Formats: sequence, C-alpha cells, structure tokens
Amino acid sequence: MSLRYDFASDNTAPAAPEALAALVAANQGFAASYGADDVTARAADLIRQMLDVDAEVRFVASGTAANAISLAALARPFEAVLAHAHAHVATDETGAPGLFGHGLGIIGLPGASGRIETEALARALARPESPHAQPPGALSLTQATEYGAVYAVDHIAALAGQARERGLGVHLDGARLANAAAAGFDLRTLKTLDLDLLVIGGTKAGMTPAEAIVIFRKDLARRFDARLKQSGQLPSKSRFYAAPFVGMLESGAFIDRAAHANRMAARLAKACPFPLTHPVEANAVFVEMDEARLAALRAAGWAVYRFIDGSVRFMCSWATTEETVDQLAETLSAIA
Amino acid sequence: MSLRYDFASDNTAPAAPEALAALVAANQGFAASYGADDVTARAADLIRQMLDVDAEVRFVASGTAANAISLAALARPFEAVLAHAHAHVATDETGAPGLFGHGLGIIGLPGASGRIETEALARALARPESPHAQPPGALSLTQATEYGAVYAVDHIAALAGQARERGLGVHLDGARLANAAAAGFDLRTLKTLDLDLLVIGGTKAGMTPAEAIVIFRKDLARRFDARLKQSGQLPSKSRFYAAPFVGMLESGAFIDRAAHANRMAARLAKACPFPLTHPVEANAVFVEMDEARLAALRAAGWAVYRFIDGSVRFMCSWATTEETVDQLAETLSAIA
Amino acid sequence: MSLRYDFASDNTAPAAPEALAALVAANQGFAASYGADDVTARAADLIRQMLDVDAEVRFVASGTAANAISLAALARPFEAVLAHAHAHVATDETGAPGLFGHGLGIIGLPGASGRIETEALARALARPESPHAQPPGALSLTQATEYGAVYAVDHIAALAGQARERGLGVHLDGARLANAAAAGFDLRTLKTLDLDLLVIGGTKAGMTPAEAIVIFRKDLARRFDARLKQSGQLPSKSRFYAAPFVGMLESGAFIDRAAHANRMAARLAKACPFPLTHPVEANAVFVEMDEARLAALRAAGWAVYRFIDGSVRFMCSWATTEETVDQLAETLSAIA
Amino acid sequence: MSLRYDFASDNTAPAAPEALAALVAANQGFAASYGADDVTARAADLIRQMLDVDAEVRFVASGTAANAISLAALARPFEAVLAHAHAHVATDETGAPGLFGHGLGIIGLPGASGRIETEALARALARPESPHAQPPGALSLTQATEYGAVYAVDHIAALAGQARERGLGVHLDGARLANAAAAGFDLRTLKTLDLDLLVIGGTKAGMTPAEAIVIFRKDLARRFDARLKQSGQLPSKSRFYAAPFVGMLESGAFIDRAAHANRMAARLAKACPFPLTHPVEANAVFVEMDEARLAALRAAGWAVYRFIDGSVRFMCSWATTEETVDQLAETLSAIA
Repeated sequence: MSLRYDFASDNTAPAAPEALAALVAANQGFAASYGADDVTARAADLIRQMLDVDAEVRFVASGTAANAISLAALARPFEAVLAHAHAHVATDETGAPGLFGHGLGIIGLPGASGRIETEALARALARPESPHAQPPGALSLTQATEYGAVYAVDHIAALAGQARERGLGVHLDGARLANAAAAGFDLRTLKTLDLDLLVIGGTKAGMTPAEAIVIFRKDLARRFDARLKQSGQLPSKSRFYAAPFVGMLESGAFIDRAAHANRMAARLAKACPFPLTHPVEANAVFVEMDEARLAALRAAGWAVYRFIDGSVRFMCSWATTEETVDQLAETLSAIA
Repeated sequence: MSLRYDFASDNTAPAAPEALAALVAANQGFAASYGADDVTARAADLIRQMLDVDAEVRFVASGTAANAISLAALARPFEAVLAHAHAHVATDETGAPGLFGHGLGIIGLPGASGRIETEALARALARPESPHAQPPGALSLTQATEYGAVYAVDHIAALAGQARERGLGVHLDGARLANAAAAGFDLRTLKTLDLDLLVIGGTKAGMTPAEAIVIFRKDLARRFDARLKQSGQLPSKSRFYAAPFVGMLESGAFIDRAAHANRMAARLAKACPFPLTHPVEANAVFVEMDEARLAALRAAGWAVYRFIDGSVRFMCSWATTEETVDQLAETLSAIA
Repeated sequence: MSLRYDFASDNTAPAAPEALAALVAANQGFAASYGADDVTARAADLIRQMLDVDAEVRFVASGTAANAISLAALARPFEAVLAHAHAHVATDETGAPGLFGHGLGIIGLPGASGRIETEALARALARPESPHAQPPGALSLTQATEYGAVYAVDHIAALAGQARERGLGVHLDGARLANAAAAGFDLRTLKTLDLDLLVIGGTKAGMTPAEAIVIFRKDLARRFDARLKQSGQLPSKSRFYAAPFVGMLESGAFIDRAAHANRMAARLAKACPFPLTHPVEANAVFVEMDEARLAALRAAGWAVYRFIDGSVRFMCSWATTEETVDQLAETLSAIA
Repeated sequence: MSLRYDFASDNTAPAAPEALAALVAANQGFAASYGADDVTARAADLIRQMLDVDAEVRFVASGTAANAISLAALARPFEAVLAHAHAHVATDETGAPGLFGHGLGIIGLPGASGRIETEALARALARPESPHAQPPGALSLTQATEYGAVYAVDHIAALAGQARERGLGVHLDGARLANAAAAGFDLRTLKTLDLDLLVIGGTKAGMTPAEAIVIFRKDLARRFDARLKQSGQLPSKSRFYAAPFVGMLESGAFIDRAAHANRMAARLAKACPFPLTHPVEANAVFVEMDEARLAALRAAGWAVYRFIDGSVRFMCSWATTEETVDQLAETLSAIA
C-alpha cells in the first residue's frame, strides 16, 4: 500500500498553479545571474509592497539555511539565541544555527503552543551574565508557531521590545507567515515590530522551493550577498526562486491559498474525535493519540508524525481538499 | 540599453525544455519530503545508470554548497584541500569551503588551463608535514575546468591515484561535467577513478537550479542526510531538484544540450579575431583583449567578464544560438 | 573587606610546591619547542606509567580547550555529544564544544550527582535517528563528576561499553581525576574502559596551568599536533606545561595532594550544619542553603557560588587547611 | 649528539629570571580565578602605563590563539584579513584564523622583509568588491616582522589609516613587540595608530607562556571574556599568565632583555660570512645558505630552520650569550 502524505507536512504538497505558472513564465531568455535580474527585482518589490516597508530582500533555496544565516548575522559564536524550546531552529534543523553560527547556542524558552511567554523572556534577559555561559545575543520568534498558533501583534511587540531594550537582534521565522496572515495577522504591522531579519516561507506556502529574507535593518545588508554566497545561498539562477513569489504575490494566492489551508485545518479540527492539544489558528491540527491508534491510522495509509510534544500532527496545505479532510476524519472516527 | 547576458555565464540561460517539462510533470499530488519521493528515486537511478555505478545520490540546490560540503566531508579543519589555484572552490565561492569545513585550507596548484600538473601535485604531496601548516587532506579536481579544458581520463587517474596513495580523499567538481562528457569524456570511467565524491552540475547544464552529489565511497553516506540538513541542503520538496535531472537524463538532453553548447563555443572560437588564451574543448572561449576593446564590447551591449587570469571569457550554453554567436563574432571583428 | 576564595573553586589555590619546583627546575637552558623537549617526553612517560598504558600524550594550557578539542575529534558538526546535563562541557564552557566542534550538539543526560544513569544512556542511544536532529556521535564522561561524586569502574565500563557498541567515541573529562584516584578509583583500569580520549587535569590538581590529553586510540593521534596548533593549544614552550606533571607525578603529590583535598572536604562535610545535597566522595561539598544565609556567609567574607542545581558549593584543594575548614565550619554554624 | 636549539627560535629559551621570580612570587595564597585577581589587575595596569593608554587588557596562554581570536573579532567569516603574505597568521598557524574566524580568508600582501608595502595595501583596498570573493574586513600587521624588520611609526600609521578609512579593523601582532621597542619603536605611539587589538608577546620576550591582548576599541571589550572562554583562552589561574608581565614590566626587563637579544643578532650579523637576506633590526638574522652548508651546520649540532622565503634563520633571545654567538659564527665561518 502506498502511503498518503497529504497531512504529513505542508511541504509534501506540490506547488500551487500560480507559483508554477510564474516559474514557467520566468523561463524566458537570458538573465543576469545572482539576483541582478528583473524577476528578482520584481519579487523584492512585491514583498516590500506587501509589508509596506523599504527593506532589502533576498531569495534563497532553504528555510533552514535562511534561519541559520539570519541567526549568525545577529548573534556571535559566544552568544546564544533565545527561542521557543520547540522552535524549528531549536529542534528540527540538525544544529544548523550552530554550524552557520559557529557554535552559537540556543536557549529554549517555554510558552504554550509555541508562543514564548513574555515573562519567561523577561526572566531569561534578567539572568546575570557570566563569561562561562553564552549570554543572549538575539531573539528568534516563529509566526505562525510550530504548533499552529498565531502570535498577536502586541505579543510580538512585547517580546521584541524587551529584546531590543537589551540590545539583542530579533529574527522572525515566517516559514508559515502566509498562514498567520490568512489568520488575521496584519503583515504591515511587521515594520513596527523592531525586527532585524524576517524569513518569509515560500515552500510551505505552496511554492516550488523558495524563501525570502527581508533585511529590515539596513546596516545588516552590507556584504549580505557575500554572506549568502559563502553559505551556499546566493542562487545563480535567482529568477527561479523569485518567480514563485511573483506569481503568488501578484495574484493574491499567497494569502488566499494559506486561507484555504487554514480552513481545511479548522474543518479537520471540527470533525476530529481526538482531543486537540493546541488551538487551531493556522493550518495545523495537533491531537492526543496513543500508539495503538497511531499505528491503526498508519495502517490505514496515512503518513503522519508524532511531534516533539507527544501530539500527533496533521498539516493542511493549499492542496488539501475537503474530500481528503473528510476521508481522514472518517478514518479518525473509525479508530478513535 | 539593456545588456545581453548570453555569454556572461552558462547560468544566465533559462532552463531547457526537457528540464522544465519534467519539473512541471513532477508537480503532481503529494509526495514524501526530504528525498523519500519517487521522482528523487528515479533521478538517482538515472544517474547511477549514466555512471554505471552503485552509488548513493543526493539532490541539492547549490553547487557552491555541494562542493563545500563535499570538501568538509573529506578534509578536516586542520587539513587543506589541494586544488587548482584557479578552481572555483579556490577563487569563486567566497570561502565556502572554509565555512562548511570550519577553517580548512586550500592549497592552490598550477597547471595550464585549469588542469592540475601531475608533477605539481607530486611536489605538493612530497612536501614534509609540519604541525604548523595545514597538510593535504583531500584533492579537488574540476571537469571540465574553469578554463573550458577537459581532462583526459588518464590524467585524472594519475592525479587521483597519487592522492589515494597518500590517503587523501578525492572530490570532483562536475559543474560542467555534461560539457566534458559531450566533449568525449566517458562518464562510465568515473567509477574507475577512485573518487569519493562527485558533484554533477545541473544548473549550468540547462536545468532549473539542481545539483547532484554522488557518493562513491559508501562509508561516507552514513549520516550524510544529517550533514546536508545542517548545511541547509536537504530540500523538503526534493522532487523539484530531482525532476530536472529526470527530464534531461531520460531524454538524453543532458549530453545533447551540452554538445550544442560546445559546438557554439567552437563556432565562436573559429570566428573570433582575438587570440585564444585556452584551448576550446568544452563550452568556454577565453581570449586576450585589452581594456579599451572590452569597454567597446560592453558598450555594444555584451555583458562579459574579465577572468582571474586576465582573459575575457565567453560562455556558451544550451540556449546559445548560431545567430547570437555570429552577432557576437561580428561585434568582435568590428572592435578587434 | 577582602574576600576569601579558599572554597570558591579548586582553581583559586596556588600551585603546589612540587609543581612549582619542577617548573623552576625545567627553566634551564634551551629546549626544542612545541613538545619535542625532554621535559615533555618525561612527563608523557610518567603519565603512561601512571595509567599503565601505551598511549600518546599531549600537554596543553586549557581544560576547556582540551575537552572541546577532544569532542571535536570524536563527533562531527552534525552529530551530538552525550553528556551529563550538568557536565562542565555542557554548562560551564560557553559553548566551546560548539566552537571547536563547529556546531556539534550536546545532549544532556540525567543522573544523580553528575553520574549518567546507565538506563538514560540506553534510552538516548535507542532513540531512532533522523536527519533532522543531531544523532549521538560521542559520549563524554566526567570523573570525578561536577558534584564531587566518583564513578565506580563498572559504571564507566557499562556506559562506555554501550557507547562503543553503537560506534560512538568516548571522552573522559578528568579535570579532577586526581581526586577520583585519591578516592579509590584505580587509574590503571582506565585502559580497560574503551576510552578514546582522556583529559587529565593538572590545574585543579594543584599545578600551574597544565592539562594532559591522553590519546588511547592510536589512529586519533595522526595530525593531532596540527589540530592542537590550529586550536591554539600546541605550546611553543611546552616544558612549562609538562614540568608540573613531572613534579607532581614523580613525587606522588598528584594523588597525595588530592587525597588531602578530599580529606578536607570530608572534614567540612562532617562539620557542616547544612544538609548535603550530594555525597562527598572527592573534594567538593554541596549543601542546601537559602539566599539569606548565603548572603550572610558572603558578608562574613567567604566567596562561594550557588551551583546550577541550586546547591551552594564548597571546593577543597591541596591548599585547604584544617584550620580554614574549621573557620568556615564555624561561620556556617553561626549562620545556620 | 644532542642538538643546540639556541638559535632555532626565540621560544627555545627558558624564562628570564624576572619573569620566573614574579611567577613564583604570585604563587601565594588563594586568588579569585578567571582574571579577577590582583596580579592580573597589576599586570594590566603596567601594560596601560607602558602604552600610556586607557585600554582593556587580557592575559592568555597562546599567541596563535590571541591572534586568531583577534582576527575573528574584527572580520566576519565571509570577509578576509589583509596581512603580509609571510605573516605568522598566514603561514605558521595551521589556519587558526580560519578556525576561530569560521572560514575567514587571508589575503597575502607583498612587501620587503615582512613590512607591507603601502601601495600594495592601497591596491588591495581599491579592488572592486564582489559577493563571490571575501572582501577585506581587517588589516593585520606584525611588529617586529617575521623577518626581524621594524616598521617605522609613519609606515604603520599610513597602513592603519588606509584601513580605517575603508572601515576595516586593525590588528597588530606584537609577538616581538619588545624587540621592536628595544630597536627604537616608541610604544606610546601605538595609541595614536588607530589600532583595534594588539597582541603583546610575552613568550618570545622571555616569559613563561604568556600573551597579552590589548583592546583599544572599547566596544570590542563587551563579552570579550565570553569570547575568550569559548576559545579556551580565559585561564582560571590567570595570575600565572599575568605574573611574568608584572615581573618583566616592573623591572624594565621587558625592553632590556629584548635589547640584549637585538644586540646579539647584530653581533651575529656582523660576524656572519653568509649574505644577509633581510636587514637586522631586531633579534633575527636571515642568511642565504645552500643545502650542503645547512646540512654541515646541522651536522655541527645547530638546530636551525630554512624559512618560507628560502633563507636560513637564526633567532636570538634574552638568553643568547656573546659566547654562543661567537661559537656559531665560528662554525659559520668554517662551513662558508
């Protein structure tokens, strides 16, 4: 029996038509390499428009690399990054921040459903420094969180404000920023949030592999291309990473497709007989499920994962259909 | 006036129809992520067939990263990689081997047109070791070379044999392996050459961004995916990096398109009134040209670069047309 | 009031007479640099004799560096080191293993008083591997532990055996190996324990700064000096790091002085009115003490630290006197 | 026959009496660790007085590490350090700057006898930047140079001024600063030279292993101890690295002993029948000598090295005697 990966992750989906069409359209004629082409310029403009901000934008292949490069730009090897204890950078990137950041540490902070508790950050920042441990050099936030929760603007502002007050840089991992936006998070507030670097996920939003790095703090842009090149993330054929952004931003699909994914998650949550372990605010559904039932679910052909917090995770994407959600819900009911 | 990038590099070309069609075809349904999908499996099979070898294959986004990761797998930080002094890894990757390899050094070796002199390698290997300098840990070769020359099998065998005898690992940068193959280099001889790691360039061969890492030495494959992930080169949507290989290998376009590029280079070389500085064996033409004439060429709209050896470089690709070659040749004649 | 650092750490003590005398004695005439001198050779011989093993020995300045270099030799950047969650390498070296190991991770394991639980190691080793997290590449043990406990030989054998079975390297941090030996741990059993690298602390044992790295696994010795040199730990005037070992090993002071330190800890433990939080097996006494009493103790002039587990720590050294122990005990009784 | 290392290097000498006496004197009682002790404070004061500058000072074990840590503080991994092509950091530290600097590059500049040509630096700084190569991030100078030459103040000012104008940091490797000072270089001019970081060599100046890092630019001092700790260069028993500085600075021996070494070099140069290859301005004598004569010299018992430029090098130190110089001169005359 072949497994169904529909809910295994939002990166098991194909690329959305708008992304693919733009990629095909970009495949015309010769173009300057390493980001000097028109498609790349256009995509950067569209991102600046979407965020209503004057910032530098770069397009890269990998979200893991984009995050790690960002953290390396903000914290030095003998410093640490404050992040949610279950953040992707902390648990799911094989130590990439330590490689690109040459040993920088990560200090895990608590908080329900992947949102860092404001008090926990305050405590971490108040801890006296010593040369014997890596002091905080940057704060990394994730929107939407690993658990499909969406930060309120004020929450991010409170966290970023604390960090900034102590001289820390702030990074936002927006692998699922589209889902957060579709859930009501206003992207134009980002410019007020005192961020240094933002990674906007294209891949999970329904593009062919593509991520955008937004450099809010202008002085960080100096020699950023050299940084990317050394890190293997300055694509020669940049247009192929920019084009899907053009396609999805021009058409509005970036948000629309994410809204669909969110709706599918809501539909699944509603139909799901297992207890939810996290609020369903974006495109993820986390449930409590024992091993026997998980095995039964897999035996029924569904590839899904038990997450780091012990929940079983179902991810929806632009490509998830109501029909598939209902099929899964049926299986869930059968094994519950 | 908009510049023409036709000859600026072989990465200014769009993707070939066979690559793009395969990418579009791969965009169907859900697929396991991180390389566990069928398209990735198929592409790996095709590469094994092409090389007639049982080896592990991985698909990544960046040639710079693929090279640097390979060198990091073969040489330790306190060792150095022997490479041609003008090799891409030595001169054009912003120190990526040093980043991924954590300080590993590069020892530049001489040799006409990018081919390492056998004697020079012998001398480098014979140099007495000291703890005060990084001793050779690996050898890196490039086929075709940065100067568009193609190594004979025996030449590589002699170099790799020497390296192996001294316990060094051997890496082959095949960013333009297709062009070498099209020029007569038999890819099935690679398996006899005692290589550890081979990077096969897809990007310059006419694909959307895609590179393959071939792991000849099986023990190197252990935890290679963790290595890739930490390095930001384990693509979640792997199929998009594998598909162009499927398209171009199944159709034969991988070699055919490279053969076309080589022919275009030969045509340009024949028509070019400037002295050639390197033999034209693959898809590159290097000529002697003073600053005034280079300025005139650029004023005529052609974006081209002066290379590290002082030559002016013209790169042909699958997308280069006879007509464009003739247009360029005409301009060259006018300014000569 | 000037603070008394007698119990703040065992590195606040001066060097023992035997160490200093040997250093002074070594200061004669010219000597080959970088470890090729007679004093270095003699010290290495003495260590081999003490351990009854044929192993390579190097002398370096820093225990932090010695540990980090060792871990970097055993685990690759995309792997992790298993260590007690409160081990010095995990909590007190500012991420040095990550710097020297280029991003290698540390997985903290539980266990009372700094001794890793055998079952906890088994569970960590049994965890399925994924390319998305750093799998275990090495095991690091500490003898005596951070909490002054001493592993039984069988315990280390069980831990190291498990690690070895899974192909992991094994490192022993012996910053306080002398204290462990003085407590009854037979150093000649080390050779049976399947270790790769051992760091023998000289500094805390009463020497001027000096640490020895013992390379049990011969293949690790290849180019180890280049590794040390690149890491800033191949001292040109090696004799000054070797001499204190000569002085303290030839005289037997290495163990005798540690035995004295252990006795002082036992004396303090006996007289101490605060509850002990760890068994007193070597030269450390850990007690439960609230903030007010700690403040009172400091107000009385004693510089001591609250440890990572919340205990207050008193370290004894070769230089601790019965009189001082009794003075401290008196203060403790007064504030209890 | 046992070899004589008198002229092999200035690190083959023992420690001078003033250094050793201070070390022995420092070995009294308990002291705060990690640089918080009185001896360390006193040594830092003495260095500030000698340089007539208000700067932070740290004491470390290794010059290689001190240099590499300094360069890592000034240049980022995707940048390069401009240094003389034969500088110690470029040729004799096994790539330590690349390890501590995580891949930072070194661009070698020409200049007679180890002094960087002002014009060569200007050319390097004028070179257009590209993201494909590591652009200059810092300048590293050496005083006295590897070839025993001493920069004039104006020369350093011209080099450092150029670098500063372009935003580069400036590091001075003063492994033999004492010899430069003894040769007439006024140490109080250093504060006018726009340096960021200075490493003052104690080891080659006749101390037990000890180097001082002077942090001229105050903002670099933030978290410098964490940087040192992570790099294995925050000695717990700091007093033993500070004491020799106290002994040699308080007594004036730092300069006096270097002046003696310089005189010995001058005496040797005068008596030497082989052509000098570099001006003898400090404590080094470099001569032209063929292999047969070098072999004869070694057969006569003198351990000396052929340097990277092909010369044979004789280093004098505080411990070199007139008698030994004359013995060597005699041998040289016999084999010339």
